Amino acid sequence: MNAVIIISGGIDSVTLLHKLVKGNNSIEALSFDYGQRHVKEIEFAKYHCNLLGVNHQVVCLKNISHLISNSALTGNISVPDGHYKDESMKKTVVPNRNMIMLSIAIGYAENIGFDYVAIANHAGDHAIYPDCRTEFINALSIASSIGTYNSIKIYAPFSNISKKDIVYIGNSIGIDYTKTWSCYKGIEFQCGTCGTCVERLEALS
Amino acid sequence: MNAVIIISGGIDSVTLLHKLVKGNNSIEALSFDYGQRHVKEIEFAKYHCNLLGVNHQVVCLKNISHLISNSALTGNISVPDGHYKDESMKKTVVPNRNMIMLSIAIGYAENIGFDYVAIANHAGDHAIYPDCRTEFINALSIASSIGTYNSIKIYAPFSNISKKDIVYIGNSIGIDYTKTWSCYKGIEFQCGTCGTCVERLEALS
Repeated sequence: MNAVIIISGGIDSVTLLHKLVKGNNSIEALSFDYGQRHVKEIEFAKYHCNLLGVNHQVVCLKNISHLISNSALTGNISVPDGHYKDESMKKTVVPNRNMIMLSIAIGYAENIGFDYVAIANHAGDHAIYPDCRTEFINALSIASSIGTYNSIKIYAPFSNISKKDIVYIGNSIGIDYTKTWSCYKGIEFQCGTCGTCVERLEALS
Repeated sequence: MNAVIIISGGIDSVTLLHKLVKGNNSIEALSFDYGQRHVKEIEFAKYHCNLLGVNHQVVCLKNISHLISNSALTGNISVPDGHYKDESMKKTVVPNRNMIMLSIAIGYAENIGFDYVAIANHAGDHAIYPDCRTEFINALSIASSIGTYNSIKIYAPFSNISKKDIVYIGNSIGIDYTKTWSCYKGIEFQCGTCGTCVERLEALS
């Protein structure tokens, strides 16, 4: 397979990157700076791409961050503490983020003659993030295959497994998860209390 | 209806803008600077939005133009002359352009609580541009309605009519088409020989 992967620098996308590279696939990686508080996650994406010899580009989308600012990740709303699946976590949804990132990755795949775009959405995302659900990914994959000459499809193998399962896969191939970033707050250390930190700790324990 | 419209400054999107405003809809307009040669089209978008009192924003996507550069509109390939439906016009396809623009417009619509995104793709686009076809628009509309809390849908009322029909609608509501831009070359005057100029002349004659 050849694929453009979207990599944030968190547990899920780093695991997918390693899995794809181990499988001898041709991979190009994109990370997105869309004005998120925790932009430091991208350093970890860079680290793993360097480690694996994968070409990695950072796409700057700060020019559109004001258009999708109604979120605790990109706007003036503070990041809520609590469980990843709590209703309060809706504040951390960035409007249509996955479609925006995927559409650019699909454009790039079409540009370089690739057939797939890979994304590491997982089952734990489903409660709060509508653009992480299998139905969304499948519908967008159909749109992409119709709208591109290369019939580009979306590869999202973690759609129906948990972050704990993802860590299990990653551990089996020796991924160092201390070199990943989850915390939404973007402060010096991962806070341990925001939704994604709570999920991270559950998965790694 | 409330809708975020994608407006280039050409005949089709200017007509859709006027039609929506005449219909007393709430409209927000976005134009995209994605590194196209004919960026001057945006001046005409601005003109009509000012005329109609519609809030208009220009979204700068120059940061991604290198990712979608395999096109005569954004890269080093020269703009072909000929008929809009000719095979040679494939060079003017910008990889996944409509999904990229629509995904940002959908994100913005979700951000401001709107229900629709409007785009003026038309039947003449179908031969060469896969991301202008009805099947693509319908599939992306499904993905958008699943992936957003507002169940945002795509409104594309010109999908199955010709540019001549669009001009007929526009003339009936008094649109001044001298204040629109089509030519892909972005030179001082519209060349009259590139694909979109040929289609423009056919429609206006």
